[in-house]
Amino acid sequence: LTTRLPAVGTTVFTRMSALAAQHDAVNLGQGFPDFACDPRLVDLVAEAMRAGHNQYPPMTGVPALRQAIAGKIRAVYGHAYDADTEITVTAGATQALTTAILAVVHPGDEVIVIEPAYDSYMPAIELAGGTVVPVQMALDDAGYHVPWERIQAAVSTKTRLIVINTPHNPTGSVLRDSDLEALAGIVRGTEILVLSDEVYEHMVYDGQQHASMSRHPVLSARTFVVSSFGKTYHTTGWKIGYVAAPASLMVEFRKVHQYNVFSVNAPMQHAIAGYLADPAPYVQLPAFYQKKRDLFRAGLAGSRFELLPADGTYFQCVRYGAISAMPEAAFAEWLTSEIKVAAIPVSPFYRQAKESGIVRFCFAKRDETLALALERLARI
Amino acid sequence: LTTRLPAVGTTVFTRMSALAAQHDAVNLGQGFPDFACDPRLVDLVAEAMRAGHNQYPPMTGVPALRQAIAGKIRAVYGHAYDADTEITVTAGATQALTTAILAVVHPGDEVIVIEPAYDSYMPAIELAGGTVVPVQMALDDAGYHVPWERIQAAVSTKTRLIVINTPHNPTGSVLRDSDLEALAGIVRGTEILVLSDEVYEHMVYDGQQHASMSRHPVLSARTFVVSSFGKTYHTTGWKIGYVAAPASLMVEFRKVHQYNVFSVNAPMQHAIAGYLADPAPYVQLPAFYQKKRDLFRAGLAGSRFELLPADGTYFQCVRYGAISAMPEAAFAEWLTSEIKVAAIPVSPFYRQAKESGIVRFCFAKRDETLALALERLARI
Ligand SMILES: CSCCC(=O)C(=O)O
Ligand SMILES: CSCCC(=O)C(=O)O
Repeated sequence: LTTRLPAVGTTVFTRMSALAAQHDAVNLGQGFPDFACDPRLVDLVAEAMRAGHNQYPPMTGVPALRQAIAGKIRAVYGHAYDADTEITVTAGATQALTTAILAVVHPGDEVIVIEPAYDSYMPAIELAGGTVVPVQMALDDAGYHVPWERIQAAVSTKTRLIVINTPHNPTGSVLRDSDLEALAGIVRGTEILVLSDEVYEHMVYDGQQHASMSRHPVLSARTFVVSSFGKTYHTTGWKIGYVAAPASLMVEFRKVHQYNVFSVNAPMQHAIAGYLADPAPYVQLPAFYQKKRDLFRAGLAGSRFELLPADGTYFQCVRYGAISAMPEAAFAEWLTSEIKVAAIPVSPFYRQAKESGIVRFCFAKRDETLALALERLARI
Repeated sequence: LTTRLPAVGTTVFTRMSALAAQHDAVNLGQGFPDFACDPRLVDLVAEAMRAGHNQYPPMTGVPALRQAIAGKIRAVYGHAYDADTEITVTAGATQALTTAILAVVHPGDEVIVIEPAYDSYMPAIELAGGTVVPVQMALDDAGYHVPWERIQAAVSTKTRLIVINTPHNPTGSVLRDSDLEALAGIVRGTEILVLSDEVYEHMVYDGQQHASMSRHPVLSARTFVVSSFGKTYHTTGWKIGYVAAPASLMVEFRKVHQYNVFSVNAPMQHAIAGYLADPAPYVQLPAFYQKKRDLFRAGLAGSRFELLPADGTYFQCVRYGAISAMPEAAFAEWLTSEIKVAAIPVSPFYRQAKESGIVRFCFAKRDETLALALERLARI
């Protein structure tokens, strides 16, 4: 049996979560909260099931949820997507990303991916028969940023898609309006599409605003904007996400979507439709996570870890060069097994593992959990 | 934007359900029950959420559910799959089917598909870059059956996969042990794999036993067996399915699965794990649906529809030649808009729409719903 994905093993998240469990380590590796979601959301799911919403929902998603999503995007980013033709509910953001790639990338097409990159982008491009064109982020004292001149240089007549991720996993960096202008300048007048992974859209700190592609007139007209409720509502295991895109792109997305999953969990869609009507939970999220970020950074300030900027997401990247010269994967394993705090190496987010002496911690944890981890990390 | 799936429009199920709603017709089209699932199952989901099962479950599925699935297959079909390496939970059966195809079909490979065929198989094969080799079922007075000599004749050195579906949608036919022997004879000594869609496994009537590929030693060693809980537990909108396969095939399946959906709704997995421990619901299902099938057949017996055999699934196919010479799609639309009973034409289940003068009704409905539909159908 010849594999379709020769480069692929088990994801680093699965491996590090298993290792954390094995060593009874505080798991700051895989990104998920260790606290409960709002009980009202749970009640809404139970209500939806008891109201009988247990059969196939429409392939495109429950209308009330599509309308609520369109309403939220309009309210927050000022762009009006049509709920019927421009929003589709997905089984999480990963399914949305892979489906979008399968829908528009033809064999031989090139796709520009900015590294470090979330680990699903490249295998999805390979499955579609596309060619990954990786461009590495630059890293200086101000943190990671996208070198747009290198993106421009990577564009060819075969470029079909550029994959964007802001707020960015694993680096915690965020794009600014100037980045969107640079990207718009590159794609304007071409047939290049954009796939924008914005699942951390409600985790942008220090009063900044999330630079959603949907805010930009040139970009929104050619972008699949992907987001999810798992991160925003502390329900990463519910696997409900969505994609917003101009109708002409959405037609192609839905052709693949309907044969990939056909439709998405009905009661959870109904529950989220109701919950999304209240902006408070997502409006309050940045303050909630900024406090955790600040607590975590303060706890590491006196340690031998060097903190990188953390402008968005629930991740904090650190340099560990003052502690060890180990490669990142080995260091993350050592942290997990010896220090009992699991982290994620950044190297697997590159196609050819790049060693930067950096690991990623997830601070989406109860304050007690963070305190326990900090105590262990500060002892090093 | 050049489409990846030129032949694809909106599925016939989505279109006919929309038409049924528009005309306020009794919807015997798309296959889903119009009655409630067991309230205990709903309670189990609520319990799982309240117990905190709301974050990423393992990529392969919740261990308790994988074990329950393996236990059920062993009890019912006598084959022992390893719960860790040979079972993966999916976001419904469609996702399992498409993922299996993307995992093993390489560009240029041929895949034999038996027509009429569920509408997701062929687009998934095209997405993978494979070539569909359709073989039509034979239809005689005993109903539809698979002409194995034609399958044998369709095999080439490029054949990578044969897609099987039993009990069969849309025809309601089921394979027998002799069919499994014929299939085993074709694949034995070759490298051909089998993908077996068995979502109606617990709807086989008149005391027959479901001929699962997992029951056959030669076939189980090379087959992806796909099933789902939506049909069995009256929860088609929950989108929880699974695939069982030898570990060597499962390794490839999981490589694609983890980048397609990563993982599957956690609380529903926990709930089904608990519910599956009790065999009663699936053991009692054939009797439950056989009563509905018999009621529906009895109601049509004096009508101008000619009943085809209905040995499995919750579908009843009928010939309407005594009523009309319309093509199937037009007849189904006429039934929906004029008679106010929605049906599904069989022609879209062929790559090149084949007119057989047959439509499909779904009898997974309350007895009152069936009575209302029968009253309208018998009046024709
Ligand atoms: C889909 S599992 C990984 C969760 C996540 O996004 C991360 O930890 O980066
Ligand atoms: C996935 S929607 C269609 C339901 C079904 O399997 C059918 O009606 O054939």
